[in-house]
Amino acid sequence: MNKPEAFSEASVAFVGLGLMGGSLAMALRPHFKQVLACDPDPNSRELALQTGLVDRAAAEPDEILAEAAVIILAAPVRAILGTIDRIPDLHPGGAVVMDLGSTKRAISGRLATLPERFEALPAHPLCGKTEAGLLHADPAIFAGAPFVFCETPRTRERARALAALIVAATGARPLWIDPELHDRWAARTSHAPALLAAALVTATPPDALALAGPGFRSSTRLAKSGTAMIGDITATNRAECLAALADIRREIERLEALLVREDREGFDSYWEQARRSAQQL
Amino acid sequence: MNKPEAFSEASVAFVGLGLMGGSLAMALRPHFKQVLACDPDPNSRELALQTGLVDRAAAEPDEILAEAAVIILAAPVRAILGTIDRIPDLHPGGAVVMDLGSTKRAISGRLATLPERFEALPAHPLCGKTEAGLLHADPAIFAGAPFVFCETPRTRERARALAALIVAATGARPLWIDPELHDRWAARTSHAPALLAAALVTATPPDALALAGPGFRSSTRLAKSGTAMIGDITATNRAECLAALADIRREIERLEALLVREDREGFDSYWEQARRSAQQL
Repeated sequence: MNKPEAFSEASVAFVGLGLMGGSLAMALRPHFKQVLACDPDPNSRELALQTGLVDRAAAEPDEILAEAAVIILAAPVRAILGTIDRIPDLHPGGAVVMDLGSTKRAISGRLATLPERFEALPAHPLCGKTEAGLLHADPAIFAGAPFVFCETPRTRERARALAALIVAATGARPLWIDPELHDRWAARTSHAPALLAAALVTATPPDALALAGPGFRSSTRLAKSGTAMIGDITATNRAECLAALADIRREIERLEALLVREDREGFDSYWEQARRSAQQL
Repeated sequence: MNKPEAFSEASVAFVGLGLMGGSLAMALRPHFKQVLACDPDPNSRELALQTGLVDRAAAEPDEILAEAAVIILAAPVRAILGTIDRIPDLHPGGAVVMDLGSTKRAISGRLATLPERFEALPAHPLCGKTEAGLLHADPAIFAGAPFVFCETPRTRERARALAALIVAATGARPLWIDPELHDRWAARTSHAPALLAAALVTATPPDALALAGPGFRSSTRLAKSGTAMIGDITATNRAECLAALADIRREIERLEALLVREDREGFDSYWEQARRSAQQL
């Protein structure tokens, strides 16, 4: 494993400076010679420059990719896929191309189409915040959280060194798994729960919100996710999302049956088991 | 409206010293001459005595109710119903009987059976914490949160004065609504979301929990609710819980249909609307 100094003379380019890209840029700032970034939002670019988070900021990747030894794609999945396609034209040499996309199968497949001179590190940090955007970025959000890395045929020595550096710089818990397994599990723990939150919000009559307390806010928090992000997730992880939703719907039907039968004993035993699982999280 | 001094020479008796009873006892401590409490848990009683939260603590209501001008029932619904039935035997005089139960229709009906010498104040503070128990009690949890009070034929001057005192002492937002309306709305914002959290936890394969982040914990937080509490809720608000679950299930089916059809435009517009509602909370 390379030492953190492995990149101390290198430039890193972030494509996307939202909550995730911004937070990771903060964590990696001390370990790179130069931090470059592009983001379509001029306010994010200005904030990144003013706070010294980046050395240069541009609207488009064209202006920053060529010099980077590490490219970190931190955007909704479809935008990441589009950027990957342009990398060979925008970068004449070699680089580690990492992404923080919410699904990994489609992106890993696309990264595999890059020329041999590029290494690939599909990744996904399992952390977040209610508020999006660079303004809320915080390098501490990764600490203790799972940080998924996917091994691909294009994941070589420099990509592994980058993963090691990120783990050292953030305190995240590295988890090397297949892109397919990531997508299957993430559908269960992240994508379907977000869809469920949206279903709950939509099913709730506005009048009833007079009684919305912290429990309801907690249950619907994921419905605040960005439309592009969640739309791209469901588009690139459709089958797993559908399987997860069907299973959740079946569990709701089981609970409904217990209520209809007024089966208090059955309900209590269902609840006890769910409660134990929730408490173990 | 009476002044807060209205109860400064009176005793208040809490039946149940968990998170809710304990938190309200802390807020009301300065406004009563004496605070009495009963709780089956000896640790809670000891903690309450040691911290000076209560002047006297007992295992059973028998030992504390007789002297109280205000009785506050802070337990799961079924336990509250059982205590109400015993009040006429345990208290020779008059008192305001308030409860903090999670459903209001059954309790309001039961309070109406008390002899005329008792006033009734069915109530429900819409706040909470992940951790239960007196150890986590905090008088600040009510501030800014809705505090439901129900007007019943037995809600007279002293009961109203108690409500005013509680609002003044806690900073809660009073919301006077019918017991039926409370139960209908609470099914939507609290009871069904809790059932949904349990369904989600149960539908999630244990392996997938490796990717559980803050979003999953937030979505499943309500599944940690106590079994007696939620069992009593569903038993006393069955029809409204079933109606809410059916509506949520229908929304999940709408989302499934959008995914099956790969209707990205339809999905995005569904999501945008849900997102706006969630953000307005």
